[in-house]
Amino acid sequence: MNACGLIVEYNPFHNGHYYHLEQSKQATNSDCMIAVMSGNFLQRGEPAITDKFHRARVAVQQGVDIVVELPFIYAVQNSDLFARGAVSILAALGVKSLCFGSESGQINDFINAYKLFQNKQERYKLELKKQLSYGISFPEASRQAYQAIGLTQGSIDLSQPNNILGFSYLKSIYQNNFSIRPMTIKRTKNNYHDKEIKNEIASATSIRKELVAYNKVTTLAKEALPSKMIEGLDEYKQYSGLWHHWEHYFNILQYRVLTMTEAELRQVHGVDEGLEYRLKRTASKATSFDSWMNDVKTKRYTWTRLQRMFAHILVNTKKESIVSLTEEKLPYIRLLAMTDKGQAYLNQIKKSMEIPIITGLKNGRHQISAIESQASYAYYSVVSPIQRRKLYKQELNPPYILNKRS
Amino acid sequence: MNACGLIVEYNPFHNGHYYHLEQSKQATNSDCMIAVMSGNFLQRGEPAITDKFHRARVAVQQGVDIVVELPFIYAVQNSDLFARGAVSILAALGVKSLCFGSESGQINDFINAYKLFQNKQERYKLELKKQLSYGISFPEASRQAYQAIGLTQGSIDLSQPNNILGFSYLKSIYQNNFSIRPMTIKRTKNNYHDKEIKNEIASATSIRKELVAYNKVTTLAKEALPSKMIEGLDEYKQYSGLWHHWEHYFNILQYRVLTMTEAELRQVHGVDEGLEYRLKRTASKATSFDSWMNDVKTKRYTWTRLQRMFAHILVNTKKESIVSLTEEKLPYIRLLAMTDKGQAYLNQIKKSMEIPIITGLKNGRHQISAIESQASYAYYSVVSPIQRRKLYKQELNPPYILNKRS
Repeated sequence: MNACGLIVEYNPFHNGHYYHLEQSKQATNSDCMIAVMSGNFLQRGEPAITDKFHRARVAVQQGVDIVVELPFIYAVQNSDLFARGAVSILAALGVKSLCFGSESGQINDFINAYKLFQNKQERYKLELKKQLSYGISFPEASRQAYQAIGLTQGSIDLSQPNNILGFSYLKSIYQNNFSIRPMTIKRTKNNYHDKEIKNEIASATSIRKELVAYNKVTTLAKEALPSKMIEGLDEYKQYSGLWHHWEHYFNILQYRVLTMTEAELRQVHGVDEGLEYRLKRTASKATSFDSWMNDVKTKRYTWTRLQRMFAHILVNTKKESIVSLTEEKLPYIRLLAMTDKGQAYLNQIKKSMEIPIITGLKNGRHQISAIESQASYAYYSVVSPIQRRKLYKQELNPPYILNKRS
Repeated sequence: MNACGLIVEYNPFHNGHYYHLEQSKQATNSDCMIAVMSGNFLQRGEPAITDKFHRARVAVQQGVDIVVELPFIYAVQNSDLFARGAVSILAALGVKSLCFGSESGQINDFINAYKLFQNKQERYKLELKKQLSYGISFPEASRQAYQAIGLTQGSIDLSQPNNILGFSYLKSIYQNNFSIRPMTIKRTKNNYHDKEIKNEIASATSIRKELVAYNKVTTLAKEALPSKMIEGLDEYKQYSGLWHHWEHYFNILQYRVLTMTEAELRQVHGVDEGLEYRLKRTASKATSFDSWMNDVKTKRYTWTRLQRMFAHILVNTKKESIVSLTEEKLPYIRLLAMTDKGQAYLNQIKKSMEIPIITGLKNGRHQISAIESQASYAYYSVVSPIQRRKLYKQELNPPYILNKRS
């Protein structure tokens, strides 16, 4: 079988994802679609609206053959680390191609940009450092540095979120000499951050806004979601009592920051450049997550970066562990859901794989499992005690298998 | 003025406390009654039913002249450390006597017991170590060790909770050569742990049980409480939405334990002898504080000791800080409430005092203030965000002053 890789969050799985899936299948001529999906916390530093098990299940119901988890230590990171984790997993799973959505839509633009970047990496790094020293945010500094080495002019726009991610995927493929062919599909209609649903191919952000604001699947949201996802959303809320978002975690986060010393906060991944003082100073006045974020925010930090920092405070991930773990080889790949076809593909490649596939989390296996477990408990901490216990048990259960032949 | 010291929790202030206060005043012939009161967390390792400010206010309304706070690092400790903190504060405030309630009621029995203990301290320590090695709880091991040196036979019963505390007060007075005269009043009628209110002089435990079970001041509870305390309880609940007890903190505690590594748990004061593994193992199954406690409990640990451990996990107090801070001299005494007479007394002794009196918590003053602040935030973490902010502000405000003359 010929496998194609996708790097996704499915938060939630919507028509745009379905469109991307079908396009990728055709463009790469693949008969097995493998998605590396962020777990309960996402790259933009947010808790996912429903847990990873429910999102993975809908993904295979919609046509993905295998869903594996991107570990927390890679998922809640800047684009380069996120890409490094996701691309290595796809490489280990033997995919022939990786197909990503981008604002550009032209893979040659990415390839040319990479060649240019490769030759001028040193200049880029120097320029980036200089820009950061002015106190501006990383994405803005990075954009300036790309511009300084001649990128963005007539090439891909590296200030667009999906172009940034795509470029990180390419860097990861080429720098590791993976035999994966990168391909890209133009993201259509709505932009990444659009907050209002405009049509049947809406962005995940706009759908989430709609769901959270009305606390139900509105008619407008229904137009953007496949029926299985609507069922999945309703079922999850009925079971857990809520769709997760940051405001649910405000109490715990505020409690944490106010019962930690500055020195303890500084040990948490993402708490850099004196943010520990800013956090303590603003915490006691905050009465909601949103108001707190607005108090912490300055032009130096993007909203996304601060959200990621809060996710690491919540999960209690230390700088020390993140650095050592992301430098090691992945100890395992966690399977979340698959179709029978996906299962056949895994059986086919199993023997030649260097990294074992696991089907359930076992404590004490590896420090990465311990962090996965912390992330999962932190995520479910806002659910009632009895449901929390049941939801956590999914971590220990075998993955969901959709039998298409029967 | 002639001052007498009391060591109390007032959780809540009830008729028994009033009786003890009046008896102490008469017995010691004092015209200024000074109470050292535990803050928001108590010696038995529980959150107080209402915050320290509300309890201190009622205490002065009922006849106490000065209420000062026993810092968290001394309050949530075994009887010896609890006594060391409380007695040094009373000594610094120049009290002539200390009057405590006990099951014995005979001060000479305590004094004789201390003399015997002083001569056989080494034997006591050896015996205690031996008994503890059998895996029994500290109070039981201590009772056996006292028996081995000849205490408890015809003397005070050192397995009774108030006798144990009283004996710790005496040790602290004599070992530090404080010129404080110890006195004791027999605790009448109800025993310390009785859980059912029996009459107008009921125990704090039985009153709390009653209040929490019915979530209101029942007719039975009313009989045991002065009217000012009833008002205080009602007012606090109206303002904060609740009377604090451990079940309110279950979510946060479980979240904490499940997002900490064993090594991190081991750094917390009270997490000893492999309790970190027991905590982690039992945490994921727990659905309430009570069920969790029952799962952690063995004959080696008393309920009280485990509750204290949970309080330190909640407040995030590390072994390291506790050890260094309790070895240092107290940096300040925190005033919570006073009458005009109390104020006059403080003005009289101020110049000769070695430790400054502070009237509000200021951040960054001392590591003890940082821990007080953590304890306070942890305590209010179960209140709604806006009320929490208002309640915490009391930490920064001047103390309540009751002007009796006007």
